[in-house]
Amino acid sequence: MPESPIIAIDAMGGDIGPEVTVAAASRIIKQRNDVKLILVGFEDRIKAEIVKLNLEISDRLSIQHASEVVDMDEAPASALRKKKDSSMRVAINLVHEGKASAAVSAGNTGALMATAKFVYKTLPGIDRPAIMTTLPNMKGHTHMLDLGANVDSSAESLFQFAVMGSVTASAVDNVDNPRVGLLNVGAESMKGNAQVKAAEPLLQNSNLNYIGFVEGDDIYNGSVDVVVCDGFVGNVSLKSAEGVAKMIGHFMKVEFKRNLFTKLIGLIALPVLKSFKKRVDHRRYNGASLLGLKQIVIKSHGGADEYAFSKAIDVAILEVEKRVPQCIESHLGVLLEKNRR
Amino acid sequence: MPESPIIAIDAMGGDIGPEVTVAAASRIIKQRNDVKLILVGFEDRIKAEIVKLNLEISDRLSIQHASEVVDMDEAPASALRKKKDSSMRVAINLVHEGKASAAVSAGNTGALMATAKFVYKTLPGIDRPAIMTTLPNMKGHTHMLDLGANVDSSAESLFQFAVMGSVTASAVDNVDNPRVGLLNVGAESMKGNAQVKAAEPLLQNSNLNYIGFVEGDDIYNGSVDVVVCDGFVGNVSLKSAEGVAKMIGHFMKVEFKRNLFTKLIGLIALPVLKSFKKRVDHRRYNGASLLGLKQIVIKSHGGADEYAFSKAIDVAILEVEKRVPQCIESHLGVLLEKNRR
Repeated sequence: MPESPIIAIDAMGGDIGPEVTVAAASRIIKQRNDVKLILVGFEDRIKAEIVKLNLEISDRLSIQHASEVVDMDEAPASALRKKKDSSMRVAINLVHEGKASAAVSAGNTGALMATAKFVYKTLPGIDRPAIMTTLPNMKGHTHMLDLGANVDSSAESLFQFAVMGSVTASAVDNVDNPRVGLLNVGAESMKGNAQVKAAEPLLQNSNLNYIGFVEGDDIYNGSVDVVVCDGFVGNVSLKSAEGVAKMIGHFMKVEFKRNLFTKLIGLIALPVLKSFKKRVDHRRYNGASLLGLKQIVIKSHGGADEYAFSKAIDVAILEVEKRVPQCIESHLGVLLEKNRR
Repeated sequence: MPESPIIAIDAMGGDIGPEVTVAAASRIIKQRNDVKLILVGFEDRIKAEIVKLNLEISDRLSIQHASEVVDMDEAPASALRKKKDSSMRVAINLVHEGKASAAVSAGNTGALMATAKFVYKTLPGIDRPAIMTTLPNMKGHTHMLDLGANVDSSAESLFQFAVMGSVTASAVDNVDNPRVGLLNVGAESMKGNAQVKAAEPLLQNSNLNYIGFVEGDDIYNGSVDVVVCDGFVGNVSLKSAEGVAKMIGHFMKVEFKRNLFTKLIGLIALPVLKSFKKRVDHRRYNGASLLGLKQIVIKSHGGADEYAFSKAIDVAILEVEKRVPQCIESHLGVLLEKNRR
């Protein structure tokens, strides 16, 4: 393991590519002097961005050429089989070869998961890796998984997500026993679907700090640290929250832009609106972890801008420092063993 | 069918009871002169509220005594078997007996569904009733179902939800072919869980205006009129959106209350903040329909206040005027028949 984190950045991934990723790398290089970054992709395009930003290629900021790019809508299997020199694949290979300590990509999620799983391999005891992200809540933040890597998850998979989520939250937040909740519905008549009912006893019998069922609104009220769910449910939950947040922002703009008078009020309220906006800025939470693999890879939102992408790099650095895969591996044996008894 | 809508109101249901429900009834009586309301529950408690509000018992506002109340956490089967004189049951009976045209309750959802299903019966061709609500979107509103009546729904059930949702949206919104979407996940690697994959061909082969898969954020952007999903998924989606909206509201308050200066700005911005608040006021959308039954019953949020509960009564009135169950029944035969071919 290298002394200071070395992050391999898929510089071509995402909706925009080097224009965003190199600028984000520049931001990180300026913020921290204990991190090395390797920009992976078309050498000439990356170099052009580096020149544009008056940066210098150095030991801390280097380029690794890769001749291909995985398309955003490419089938994962095709990316894996046909694009062996893609920026994504080369970044992941660098980690696998010990030349970097984590990879970050804003590229195609499915291809990234397939490639990382193929190259890194899953940790012993983990059937399926999961995607975990951090979301703001009224009192701090909540970790949530799975967000779409798995659908129709088995009870055993949900239990593994809980273990991975708990260990990771504990490591990155420096807390001992994060509260783990299983996402369920609150209508009085029901106690969940078959999936949730089957997972409940596994969680109850574990030595996780399992607090029971939680509902969708609990994700955002600070009553739980790790929310566990199937990837279909998690993805719908996340996108629904994003959708309503966007609508609220839209209506706020509409009201402040209604006429000259309201525009003036908007100007006066600008400092407050700005700190409010900063507070709910989803870019701060960019960077989802692909958990359950032997090494680290962070998925950035495809539409990330420079600031958002730099946050994904930050997540990668934190997970390297906290040695997340090693933490999961060492806890996994104990927790799964206890569960099997 | 009575000439003007007669709404049987479970006056005891919800977290508060007559204090809210009678006040809401009073609001409706003042707003409309073509509606009759029957308040169902403890006669003395309802009378006391009527006196408090300076109302008069009349042909338009009457009381039907009921000696029991279904608890908010009571098991549906127990409510159905043991509380045959509950305010909820009596309100539904009034509709069944033709003495009212629709029932409204803020009580226990599971008990309401079980009671309505038992007394009203489901429409021919419908296996399971569903809960549908209206949600705001950037351009108007979206109808969404199921929100929790069913978990682990079959493909056939999802198809029936689509038919009921489409017919109801068409009736209440006066539109010919509302756009129907099936809620799915957008991660590039996946095309949904088993449930959604099985329902897709049924929708594609129907003569609904089926626009394909939609994602969680589409619920709020105005790109679809009717969003169809399993009740587990729908409930999580709705609660997640509620949770994030509450958090956003909380942070906005925090920022405006930070210090004297920001409080002053808040005062200046009050007119804009008020119209914004009105715009995203979830109370306006209170009142969910239990669809697929032979008669009308509207579920209000248990925590509804006077204004919110009056909105649920409005939904009941609209569905009576638009003859929603009859519309569903007459379209159902055709649509399901086409589907079977």
